Amino acid sequence: MSHAAYGRLATRFARIATLGEASAVLHWDASAMMPPGGGAARGEQLATLAGLRHELLTAPEVADDLAAATAEGEWAEANLALMRRAHRRATALPTDLVEAAERANAACEKVWRIAKARSDFAMVQPHLAEIVRLQRETAGALSAALGLSPYDALMDGFQPGIAAADVEPVFAAYEAFLAEALPRAEALQAARGTPQSVPGPFPVETQRRLCGSISTRLGLDYDHARLDESLHPFCGGTPTDIRITTFYSEAEVGKALMGVIHETGHALYEAGLPDAWARQPVGEAAGMAAHESQSLLMEMQACRSDAFLAFLGGELHAAFGGDPAPYATANLARLWRRVSRGFIRVDADELTYPAHVILRFRLERALIGGELSVADLPGAWAEGFTRLLGIAPPDDAQGCLQDIHWHDGAFGYFPSYTLGAMAAAQLMGAARHALPDLDASLAEGDMAPLLGWLRIHVHGQGSRLGFQDLLRTATGKPLDPADFMAHLRSRYLQ
Amino acid sequence: MSHAAYGRLATRFARIATLGEASAVLHWDASAMMPPGGGAARGEQLATLAGLRHELLTAPEVADDLAAATAEGEWAEANLALMRRAHRRATALPTDLVEAAERANAACEKVWRIAKARSDFAMVQPHLAEIVRLQRETAGALSAALGLSPYDALMDGFQPGIAAADVEPVFAAYEAFLAEALPRAEALQAARGTPQSVPGPFPVETQRRLCGSISTRLGLDYDHARLDESLHPFCGGTPTDIRITTFYSEAEVGKALMGVIHETGHALYEAGLPDAWARQPVGEAAGMAAHESQSLLMEMQACRSDAFLAFLGGELHAAFGGDPAPYATANLARLWRRVSRGFIRVDADELTYPAHVILRFRLERALIGGELSVADLPGAWAEGFTRLLGIAPPDDAQGCLQDIHWHDGAFGYFPSYTLGAMAAAQLMGAARHALPDLDASLAEGDMAPLLGWLRIHVHGQGSRLGFQDLLRTATGKPLDPADFMAHLRSRYLQ
Repeated sequence: MSHAAYGRLATRFARIATLGEASAVLHWDASAMMPPGGGAARGEQLATLAGLRHELLTAPEVADDLAAATAEGEWAEANLALMRRAHRRATALPTDLVEAAERANAACEKVWRIAKARSDFAMVQPHLAEIVRLQRETAGALSAALGLSPYDALMDGFQPGIAAADVEPVFAAYEAFLAEALPRAEALQAARGTPQSVPGPFPVETQRRLCGSISTRLGLDYDHARLDESLHPFCGGTPTDIRITTFYSEAEVGKALMGVIHETGHALYEAGLPDAWARQPVGEAAGMAAHESQSLLMEMQACRSDAFLAFLGGELHAAFGGDPAPYATANLARLWRRVSRGFIRVDADELTYPAHVILRFRLERALIGGELSVADLPGAWAEGFTRLLGIAPPDDAQGCLQDIHWHDGAFGYFPSYTLGAMAAAQLMGAARHALPDLDASLAEGDMAPLLGWLRIHVHGQGSRLGFQDLLRTATGKPLDPADFMAHLRSRYLQ
Repeated sequence: MSHAAYGRLATRFARIATLGEASAVLHWDASAMMPPGGGAARGEQLATLAGLRHELLTAPEVADDLAAATAEGEWAEANLALMRRAHRRATALPTDLVEAAERANAACEKVWRIAKARSDFAMVQPHLAEIVRLQRETAGALSAALGLSPYDALMDGFQPGIAAADVEPVFAAYEAFLAEALPRAEALQAARGTPQSVPGPFPVETQRRLCGSISTRLGLDYDHARLDESLHPFCGGTPTDIRITTFYSEAEVGKALMGVIHETGHALYEAGLPDAWARQPVGEAAGMAAHESQSLLMEMQACRSDAFLAFLGGELHAAFGGDPAPYATANLARLWRRVSRGFIRVDADELTYPAHVILRFRLERALIGGELSVADLPGAWAEGFTRLLGIAPPDDAQGCLQDIHWHDGAFGYFPSYTLGAMAAAQLMGAARHALPDLDASLAEGDMAPLLGWLRIHVHGQGSRLGFQDLLRTATGKPLDPADFMAHLRSRYLQ
């Protein structure tokens, strides 16, 4: 009986995942292909698919099957546990709360686009206050169902198995490190003088070819992938049909190229998920921090290394010609690993980026906990930013209005970025230990050894292990910011 | 109570239509964008969506609501009638028959691709025989539920409200007309000598721009549409997000351009469907023959007219430059309105095309009726083709293996092509009557008057009227091949 129940659940979850695949392709299309007039109908299509997935997940027979089901073997057991978790999350929230939150998110997001353009926080404030009110209610309901604190219950939706208690000490350690490291990195950088700029223009068609060939070299199989363009680059699609995007500028080549490398890191994770568990919860990626670890490992650890930049400089010069001097490794390193205190998270370098995340983590936790009111957010932002980076944003557009996340109802997401950056350094350390010739292969643009290691230790693990156990199994310890700081010291402080 | 039942049905059918929109975008993506390795997952996604649509349509409460529902007003009444029809069709077939047919279609289609390449009918014969067996069973079950003859029940799935009894006399009249008209048209054409060919090559980028600008001029709004490329051109997507495709060759410009004009005709129909009835059965296009009437009206009636060719010649010369002589109206007319007896339907001119359809209509009717066996198909094909066009195909690849339709389980579709061509001529006649200056506006590339007339008399009618009533209302009479023959006489026999 209980095996039959597990079989029914597996069939049901495969159906849910297949509808999720359809949504993923429709999302990609909306960003990369859809004409502007298709937006309203697309919204309906995605809402209908989301509604059907929710109905399939919360149908009365699911609870019975979950109660009766037994699974055999480590993978199936983990799969069943993840099914139970998904069901608990989906049934924890009353439908009217979900719908009220969706309406509030949609309403706020629209106003936010204008408010951000005008740098007018007052305009969006009542909408954001309504979102926070509903997110508190959501967090409370999830908290009761999952046995987690309210903020942890939200964070668990993005990165299962990670709690604020895991994040706090790590972020505190980083704050202390940064206070000392940032001025030293800036002084060293200034002493080295300004790097020589790489001469443009860079024809888009040539950039496109180069991005295609570099991502292929990283291991992306274009029989199962596409590279297109969108305003905000992302990795979407499905494991056997991955869609990555970038944004080209004729004036600059580094941004699109490094962006494609970043998205390729995400894509390789999806492509390397275990086939045998496709469309089952255990066959999915292990959360957003794990995902970000794969994009940042590829972009920051592997491809901004001296070794790979030596290879990449040659490829760039072959593609664009001209004076070879700016493409020398040392010059590219100074150009593309530049540290700079800025107000905008998405433009930040890897040393200051965590400060942007630490600020947001603390503020959103206080908003959900009720210790901070939305009205006080701009002031708290300026104060926190000044404490972390020594500068205060000149306006709210460069402050608390810059990100879509909160204005679209996403609370608990931000930590994933920095947990991912730290995990990337930790995994790269373990890979380097296992592959003593790693730098030599990177210098030849040979990514096969690194990808082989990642496939075994990360991609092929799916969601069998939680984030911390994934790191433990792959690197011998849970998340430890020491590897990231060691990486930054070696790159920026020597 | 009965109004509430209608409201519930309207909500349910909107949901079904929204899932259909998702499928339409995924179908377009599969043909125009998807990397080859995405095919297997895409098949699953489309099958899951089709399964959900079927479940929503055949759920037990639908029958109760349909029995209880009443609707007020002509449109709502027509909508309810179409809901009943859709439900009757969906519930007429046992699930195991539907699944067996789907499997047989998929298996045959795969073998057919190879058999066609090798011109090996024996290879596909058992698979096609299995399809015919299951189509007979399907036709029998539908026949009982709908009160139609078995073949009519299949045809009704593509063009509701049209029966073989409507088609037979029309096709018989055309056969008699063709026997006399074709030799005369060929003699006249020969007497006029060979037209001057338009000099290539035609850069693809220029063709793409030209196709975009001509389709815009026809009335396609690219805020709600895209033009892309695929091996087999088609019009897909949804009414507010239409996706048309074409296939460019540097050597030739007419095929891609006329193809885009044809697909634009389909697209304008979708775009002009009544907004107020979006996602309801009555808001859909009135069947495949009606759809084909709109593509052929645009391509054959409007855009291959002397008036429009005069405009188009100027546009072509402006785009590609060179000697203006081949772009003269009379030369373009002789190039792009060339009559030729050939074996391949999709390459046929408008005079001989109906012969290809008449043959298939008679053969598929005999296959479904049991008067023709699959084993005898190649012989019957050669015999019928010789009778209609005086030539026999040299092999089965150029005979009964050329089309995907039967090999994918589509029986009853073929008549739509020629019914559409005839309806196009009839509608164009009525439009010309209502718009005395139509040729003058076509000669200036001004399509607004024609589109305005079509929007009122065809597009905006949705499925409120059946095919025959649509023609009656728009042209004062039901389908009448006389207008088509008059058009052909004036174009090819003078």
